[in-house]
Amino acid sequence: MRCEVVAIGTELLLGQITDTNSSWIGEQLALAGIDSYFQVKVGDNLARIVDCIKQALQRNDAVITCGGLGPTQDDITREAIAEVMGVPMVRDEQIGERIRQMFESRGRTMPANNLRQADVPRGATTIREMPGTAPGLVCPVGDKVIYAVPGVPSEMREMMRGTILPDLQRRAGVTAVIKSRVLRTWGHSESGLAEMLAAHMEALDVSGRATLAFQASGIEGIKVRITAKADSEHLANEIIAHEEGVVRAILGNYVFGIDEQTMELVILTALQRAGMTLAVAETATGGLISQRLSAVRESSQAFRGGVMIASSEAQQRLLGVPPAPHANPETTAALAAAVRAALGADIGLATTAVDDSIRGPGLRPGTVFIGLANATAATAERIQLPGDRERIREFSVISALNLLRHRLLKI
Amino acid sequence: MRCEVVAIGTELLLGQITDTNSSWIGEQLALAGIDSYFQVKVGDNLARIVDCIKQALQRNDAVITCGGLGPTQDDITREAIAEVMGVPMVRDEQIGERIRQMFESRGRTMPANNLRQADVPRGATTIREMPGTAPGLVCPVGDKVIYAVPGVPSEMREMMRGTILPDLQRRAGVTAVIKSRVLRTWGHSESGLAEMLAAHMEALDVSGRATLAFQASGIEGIKVRITAKADSEHLANEIIAHEEGVVRAILGNYVFGIDEQTMELVILTALQRAGMTLAVAETATGGLISQRLSAVRESSQAFRGGVMIASSEAQQRLLGVPPAPHANPETTAALAAAVRAALGADIGLATTAVDDSIRGPGLRPGTVFIGLANATAATAERIQLPGDRERIREFSVISALNLLRHRLLKI
Repeated sequence: MRCEVVAIGTELLLGQITDTNSSWIGEQLALAGIDSYFQVKVGDNLARIVDCIKQALQRNDAVITCGGLGPTQDDITREAIAEVMGVPMVRDEQIGERIRQMFESRGRTMPANNLRQADVPRGATTIREMPGTAPGLVCPVGDKVIYAVPGVPSEMREMMRGTILPDLQRRAGVTAVIKSRVLRTWGHSESGLAEMLAAHMEALDVSGRATLAFQASGIEGIKVRITAKADSEHLANEIIAHEEGVVRAILGNYVFGIDEQTMELVILTALQRAGMTLAVAETATGGLISQRLSAVRESSQAFRGGVMIASSEAQQRLLGVPPAPHANPETTAALAAAVRAALGADIGLATTAVDDSIRGPGLRPGTVFIGLANATAATAERIQLPGDRERIREFSVISALNLLRHRLLKI
Repeated sequence: MRCEVVAIGTELLLGQITDTNSSWIGEQLALAGIDSYFQVKVGDNLARIVDCIKQALQRNDAVITCGGLGPTQDDITREAIAEVMGVPMVRDEQIGERIRQMFESRGRTMPANNLRQADVPRGATTIREMPGTAPGLVCPVGDKVIYAVPGVPSEMREMMRGTILPDLQRRAGVTAVIKSRVLRTWGHSESGLAEMLAAHMEALDVSGRATLAFQASGIEGIKVRITAKADSEHLANEIIAHEEGVVRAILGNYVFGIDEQTMELVILTALQRAGMTLAVAETATGGLISQRLSAVRESSQAFRGGVMIASSEAQQRLLGVPPAPHANPETTAALAAAVRAALGADIGLATTAVDDSIRGPGLRPGTVFIGLANATAATAERIQLPGDRERIREFSVISALNLLRHRLLKI
């Protein structure tokens, strides 16, 4: 079963929008066991869209078009598909009514234009999921099929998950259920993790029970994806759960979360469970830690706030810690203790970094100190990070949070 | 002159990497006056890469392949191009020597594999710019041409700017020089700006001196791009400078910067010029303002630091401002004054937001207060922002910075 993605929109060719939809669809197709050999971008030009879809149909069993389903005159994907199918457009009154109601429920009158979205190629069916005013389409062409989804990512994803991926698997005769889970890790290289898992991966190759794949994801760490194919959802889930256990046993505390669990969510959950609160003092990370922690909904119970230090005044006046000539473990530990005390929190976390211009014995750009303080002690660890200023900032954030995570694991 | 981009790499199809290179190249082609109607992604498969390049050559005058020039076995773009050209591969000894020296200068021995990068299709020339170990290629095919660039963005961009775009323009017979400048705006809608500029744009349509185009860019504001085509660089620059003056005169203070000047850079520059310092207290924005300000190099002179308030303890203990039942102008102004005093800064900036759960007279999610304080006064303004929590946070940041910018304009 082969499926090609055709992304439609002149703004994609002009680079005004980066086409992230095709990447996401490509990933989902791979996970569903559907081959995808090409992805194409084309502008809002009827003849060229028709050509792209025809070629994609020739070399594939299915085509997913993405974009061009809006209400304006340059949204012509519907017309292009009708031309490929050799059928006229017909008004779907039910869809028209649904669009009208959507506008009404928001207290607005529907512009007449929007009814264009209810025009579909004859023979096409509309996709059940319809979070916006653009209906998705399933358009049979002989024994092949064209799916049309809007370019709004959330709408596209809902239609992919709810209708298109299951339909593709059914057409492919994939009776097997494919499930996957991502284990998120921090603290080891991809090759290091691969070495730890090598024996188990060889065993999996033989048994065919599941597959493991690595994905380096920058400051999100290295992801280990477990994928299992089984005859039933129950069985697939069972394999995934078993494999998760095995991989966790091998990788230990390198694993910090699964699927959508970010490092900050994991930490806030652990703090809340322990009934503890956190305060942060940031120099190296310039507010990035606060920003990530406060972006988590309902984080305020565990996260009290922080101080962003961009000058010696800030350090001295807000936390009473005397400025040092350059970043060092003692000052960093003192900052963690001071911010903890200032905010009446249980734990204080602090980051400091050696200035770009400093070169000294053991001090060079990328030298970062992470301080941690509780009621009884304040300590600091030193790490050395590669890369430019922005990269060092970002990796300091995740390194600091990871150190805190390890500390919390011991509570 | 038509040019198609072929992005090569299985990881692009699998969604492990989002193809931002094609977007960037598309933008540059448009700016250079080169038409681009299709962009294609294909995996590391020789036959399919050859097919894609052949098709692209048929329907275009030029093709840019991006990726697949590395030293490993799955980097086969060179071989694919040789097949399209119908020529064998030859070793370019000069390039081989250059690669060897690159490794030596980093104190490493070149793996034998890397010499593959010195193999080029016979008849191809290498691109002068070569920041990495992968040489770019210019491969003539009849009166058409294939350019090959590596997938590393910085290497690709250097080759595009230095060799490919000028070569494309030369081939297109574009003797004209095309220059563009972006005016960054905040505070007005795209349609509002278009209305203000309508008469001038009509005049430009007639004169053909330059073109104006809008690009909505989320929290980066709405960009107005001026593009001028002229017989010489000098003349093009003159037109751009003149047009910038005209557009600025029409849009006034909606324009906050040009090209790569971010809002935070503009503010820090203005502060530094005035010899003033800034301190921030963030609740609504959770550290985002601090993060943006501190990300600017050399910002520390003007930016003293800030307080991130995630709890009433933080507000009371660090700044001595009593907590209120919900966000209000008085507390916000008090926070701006308090953080200013606490850090000994000239200006205090504060953000507070109505909690998601609050509904009251004039209070609903998206209600944000922005406080500003100097030595003589502390005030707060109220804004109402649409969207979800994350969007409200981000737009609060830029709105707060923009308010500060307007205040600074009056100094």
